[in-house]
Amino acid sequence: MTLQVGVIGVGLMGATHVGLLTTAVSDAAVVAVSDASAENAGRVAREAGVGSIHADALDLVRDPHVGAVVIASPAQTHEAFVLACLEAGKPVLCEKPLAATVEATRRILDAEVALGHRLVQVGFMRRFDPGYADMKRRIDSGELGAPMLVHCAHRNPTVPHTFDSEMIITDTVVHEIDVARWLLHEEIVRTTVYTPRSTSHAAEGVRDPQFVVLETEAGVLVDVEAFVNARYGYDIRCEVVGELGTVSLSNPAIVHVRSEGEAAAQVPNGFQDRFAGAYVQELQTWVNAAADGRATGPSAWDGHAAAAVSQACVESLRARRSVDVRLGERPAMYADAGRSYRPVG
Amino acid sequence: MTLQVGVIGVGLMGATHVGLLTTAVSDAAVVAVSDASAENAGRVAREAGVGSIHADALDLVRDPHVGAVVIASPAQTHEAFVLACLEAGKPVLCEKPLAATVEATRRILDAEVALGHRLVQVGFMRRFDPGYADMKRRIDSGELGAPMLVHCAHRNPTVPHTFDSEMIITDTVVHEIDVARWLLHEEIVRTTVYTPRSTSHAAEGVRDPQFVVLETEAGVLVDVEAFVNARYGYDIRCEVVGELGTVSLSNPAIVHVRSEGEAAAQVPNGFQDRFAGAYVQELQTWVNAAADGRATGPSAWDGHAAAAVSQACVESLRARRSVDVRLGERPAMYADAGRSYRPVG
Amino acid sequence: MTLQVGVIGVGLMGATHVGLLTTAVSDAAVVAVSDASAENAGRVAREAGVGSIHADALDLVRDPHVGAVVIASPAQTHEAFVLACLEAGKPVLCEKPLAATVEATRRILDAEVALGHRLVQVGFMRRFDPGYADMKRRIDSGELGAPMLVHCAHRNPTVPHTFDSEMIITDTVVHEIDVARWLLHEEIVRTTVYTPRSTSHAAEGVRDPQFVVLETEAGVLVDVEAFVNARYGYDIRCEVVGELGTVSLSNPAIVHVRSEGEAAAQVPNGFQDRFAGAYVQELQTWVNAAADGRATGPSAWDGHAAAAVSQACVESLRARRSVDVRLGERPAMYADAGRSYRPVG
Amino acid sequence: MTLQVGVIGVGLMGATHVGLLTTAVSDAAVVAVSDASAENAGRVAREAGVGSIHADALDLVRDPHVGAVVIASPAQTHEAFVLACLEAGKPVLCEKPLAATVEATRRILDAEVALGHRLVQVGFMRRFDPGYADMKRRIDSGELGAPMLVHCAHRNPTVPHTFDSEMIITDTVVHEIDVARWLLHEEIVRTTVYTPRSTSHAAEGVRDPQFVVLETEAGVLVDVEAFVNARYGYDIRCEVVGELGTVSLSNPAIVHVRSEGEAAAQVPNGFQDRFAGAYVQELQTWVNAAADGRATGPSAWDGHAAAAVSQACVESLRARRSVDVRLGERPAMYADAGRSYRPVG
Repeated sequence: MTLQVGVIGVGLMGATHVGLLTTAVSDAAVVAVSDASAENAGRVAREAGVGSIHADALDLVRDPHVGAVVIASPAQTHEAFVLACLEAGKPVLCEKPLAATVEATRRILDAEVALGHRLVQVGFMRRFDPGYADMKRRIDSGELGAPMLVHCAHRNPTVPHTFDSEMIITDTVVHEIDVARWLLHEEIVRTTVYTPRSTSHAAEGVRDPQFVVLETEAGVLVDVEAFVNARYGYDIRCEVVGELGTVSLSNPAIVHVRSEGEAAAQVPNGFQDRFAGAYVQELQTWVNAAADGRATGPSAWDGHAAAAVSQACVESLRARRSVDVRLGERPAMYADAGRSYRPVG
Repeated sequence: MTLQVGVIGVGLMGATHVGLLTTAVSDAAVVAVSDASAENAGRVAREAGVGSIHADALDLVRDPHVGAVVIASPAQTHEAFVLACLEAGKPVLCEKPLAATVEATRRILDAEVALGHRLVQVGFMRRFDPGYADMKRRIDSGELGAPMLVHCAHRNPTVPHTFDSEMIITDTVVHEIDVARWLLHEEIVRTTVYTPRSTSHAAEGVRDPQFVVLETEAGVLVDVEAFVNARYGYDIRCEVVGELGTVSLSNPAIVHVRSEGEAAAQVPNGFQDRFAGAYVQELQTWVNAAADGRATGPSAWDGHAAAAVSQACVESLRARRSVDVRLGERPAMYADAGRSYRPVG
Repeated sequence: MTLQVGVIGVGLMGATHVGLLTTAVSDAAVVAVSDASAENAGRVAREAGVGSIHADALDLVRDPHVGAVVIASPAQTHEAFVLACLEAGKPVLCEKPLAATVEATRRILDAEVALGHRLVQVGFMRRFDPGYADMKRRIDSGELGAPMLVHCAHRNPTVPHTFDSEMIITDTVVHEIDVARWLLHEEIVRTTVYTPRSTSHAAEGVRDPQFVVLETEAGVLVDVEAFVNARYGYDIRCEVVGELGTVSLSNPAIVHVRSEGEAAAQVPNGFQDRFAGAYVQELQTWVNAAADGRATGPSAWDGHAAAAVSQACVESLRARRSVDVRLGERPAMYADAGRSYRPVG
Repeated sequence: MTLQVGVIGVGLMGATHVGLLTTAVSDAAVVAVSDASAENAGRVAREAGVGSIHADALDLVRDPHVGAVVIASPAQTHEAFVLACLEAGKPVLCEKPLAATVEATRRILDAEVALGHRLVQVGFMRRFDPGYADMKRRIDSGELGAPMLVHCAHRNPTVPHTFDSEMIITDTVVHEIDVARWLLHEEIVRTTVYTPRSTSHAAEGVRDPQFVVLETEAGVLVDVEAFVNARYGYDIRCEVVGELGTVSLSNPAIVHVRSEGEAAAQVPNGFQDRFAGAYVQELQTWVNAAADGRATGPSAWDGHAAAAVSQACVESLRARRSVDVRLGERPAMYADAGRSYRPVG
């Protein structure tokens, strides 16, 4: 009954997935890996006791011993691998972004719609974080009234040298884009990207921090500070303001220390630390559905919508003006995703 | 040596000042009051043991027993009373706004410049709050690096029925406008006002909440949520994000209660509660300087700049686009106010 | 490679273990259960897909398909089952208390010492909680200086009707006894139990809350409020005071809600909620060691020491005076447990 | 109408009172000072503009220009000066302790009873702290149910070289003794002082920290950690545990800083900082009553009770056993102080 998983791309993210599937997730085993670097693939396979290594990721997808696939390779490769999984009829967990362009995510949507049922889960792991889940529960309960504003901050201590201004949208803000859509049950229709004075710790020419204002169908305003050279820690904040009150993520402190004139709690140092539990839940949810040949969690439509909003943000960043989001039709199969907020009772 | 103070306008704010000057501020006594409502004036005078009531506020200004004046009457009356104080050579604490229009604040500036020394302090009491003061100290120390973003929320539980969309700028956001200028030592040059979906608890036609994005000379971005029907409490929040860290106001809780499944702290219920100490400090600072015939604290220039930014915000609110601030020349007398941030060491 | 686990006792605690071993722990499967209630055993086995039910728990221990045993039956049965596991050479995780009397825990110690290596892990799951683990790391680092005081509170919202005054020691305070020994690397030598006025919500004749003062070899003072009808929530608090500072558990809040005049965070409602992660880590640690035929984590000596301190506390509760702990010799096999605190560097 | 105050003893505490009476308290002026050190007296008088200096404190008491007296001289001098004030019929604010021995506080009681009305207020300023006041309000409201336990910590960063083990009771724990009596409306009947291992930062031979367990008439247990070389800050904590919930002092943070991996708030660095507002309120309350020839606030009975409990604690510290408090009869004049807690409704 153990799900036989193949993992494509075993860099930092993919190796983390291999580790969690091996040690922390029930009813799953990693049976094959593939990576552009044979050395990477060999090392991860050896450490995790994975028997099979495929030089060509498409061979991994087609391997009859592989029952389901995790994709953690670079973004521009996602489309081909996801489409191959759909063709092979195998459940797939694809790291965000679902694909590198909106056109590509649309092609994936079309293929899944043609298939007639979901096989794709997109790696928006925050939906599995207990804090975000509790925020959603409280918003949905209606106890805070209709939401009107969402304030977010997404701060990384540092990023690789190659991380440029547009990646701050496509790799960083994309999480808040998904979270906002999910918390609000609404689509984002317009975006404006502001570029305040940059930190002296950003790479030459990179605009960091950025401040993004998103507007939803119903007029909810979502603002996102994205700051990827924040130095002091990995700090994820979110507050939803409703007609009767607000709900916000707490700093995930486990102890407080009083010393040298201060009472202090640690700020997490990275996403692996902050969202460790969310990754396990994400994988377990995926494994449980994949064992039945299904997919739940963030859908291809969510991946497509995030890509469309990201693209509008990038355009706003370049053109320095507000940009409307072009989302296209939502296939009936994904009907749930756009449900408007409706208070209870 | 006791400063003999006359108070013009003894509604909620003015009566609060009379009370504090009488019971909590050293070396000051209220000797005269004036109010458009003779009944108000009589009641407040009786309660505080004030001997003299002037039907005409200008008579109060000219009363030889009055050494200094507090103005807490409606905004449109401020200009005439402040100018009268300048003419009489009497120190004046004028509640915000300094005057109802930018043209009026400019006329006050001109009169004070012609006089050659400061007599006017504007009632931006937040500068006297220990929390804001500590934020400023830490920013100025350079320990957080150069500021890049300021996130603010200004929430009132409720407002009078007459409070309209533009007053959310001129009476509410005006505090954050002053705080941002003061914390950053910079002028605001551009503003964009967003109007998210309104709360159902706002009066018919009123846009509440509003979300204001201010940009400074040096490119710092200041965002302000102003929400005056927030129901749950009076909640003032401010976080400054620097290159190395952030500083934010703490919720001013004095006790925590654990009961019925929750650990809870009170949110203040109004500005009188939240800024009680700041009002005392503001008045004491004013009294101390006025005793020497001088004024310190927020200046007429600060009042003028706040009015100019407010006006640009109101224009942005009406026109639904970004608007540049027209500030005009800053007289040399107010040189300090626009100093750019410069890290120490 | 999957560890084949048999579970004895499938009430609330045992059924929780069956569930976690089945869904959240890697490399383990529950293959057999036993319970005094055949109905219980049948239901849990059915729900978890366990194939084998033993009417007699000793048969479960001897079942050749069972590779390791979890004991979650009533305390007075523990000794016989643990001894049977030792005889069968099978790793065993025994819920606290290790046995119902100090004499019984001593007999278990003797049997394990005769065997020559550890097979027993005692169910003190708090050692696996991230908060306690971080406290220990910081104490051991020496950054807070030598510990002098430990303040604890252990509050349950409610307890079953049968929970009496002595069970407040043996079932509740026993956790703090183990935590204190583990955090301090020291044995407890003396105890005094105070009985403040009881809550009106305690059962007739039950002294609740109780306040326990424990003294260690090196003179560290540990105070424990145990309050099992606290109504408002499950609240576990611990602060260690060192020469240079303190470290304390944070309230495990994931979100904060602001509404109706308050900023509030939830208090957990029970141990399953508060220590969910700790139970998984406890079981995973046990499974990993058991797969190698070993035991790590809290040892039989820890179980014995907790029993000896508990007994002294019960005696103090009855006699209303301070009582010395009679611990006996610590076999060399358990040498680590009594190591005194020694600051680094 | 201004109260003419004479201040006896202008060391650290007395000079603070002179400063506050001069700059922060309404309707009072310091007209005379006295100090064992003529130099001290001269300097403080000069700085505060006080015209009259008395070499003999008893002359100050009798000075017809002095309407009320503050006593902040060493403890052993208090009795004589308070008795002189009673004889002169002048309101007096006496710093704690009211007198150096229980016999002396009893003589003061007798004198005030003979006089027939209160003139003495004892300097337990914490009753005027907003946090403690809010705790009391919530306890008195009955919302937390009947109190059963009070947990306190009183930590000073450091103390003068001359501060010995007994002063940790008489100068430090005495504040918690008063607070507990006041919060609970009850007398303390028994005390046990524990001496954990001492910090290496204490002076030779001084037992620091100490841990004091107090028991009240109704069986409420109050525990107090007193730690006067805590290094990291001035940290005052108090939690009252009731049948339905708890209330505790919040850390008085005004800002939070996030930097270098931590979210931190300052801990106060001394009592002047932590209780600045309480001292002002204490003095204002005293001034307001003294202007009418009366005294409110902590009474001579409170001073006597605190002395009696302190004495029992010192005896327990010396004898290393529990000690009963000998309080004697409470004169009818002070009837309010011992009222038992009674929940509302």
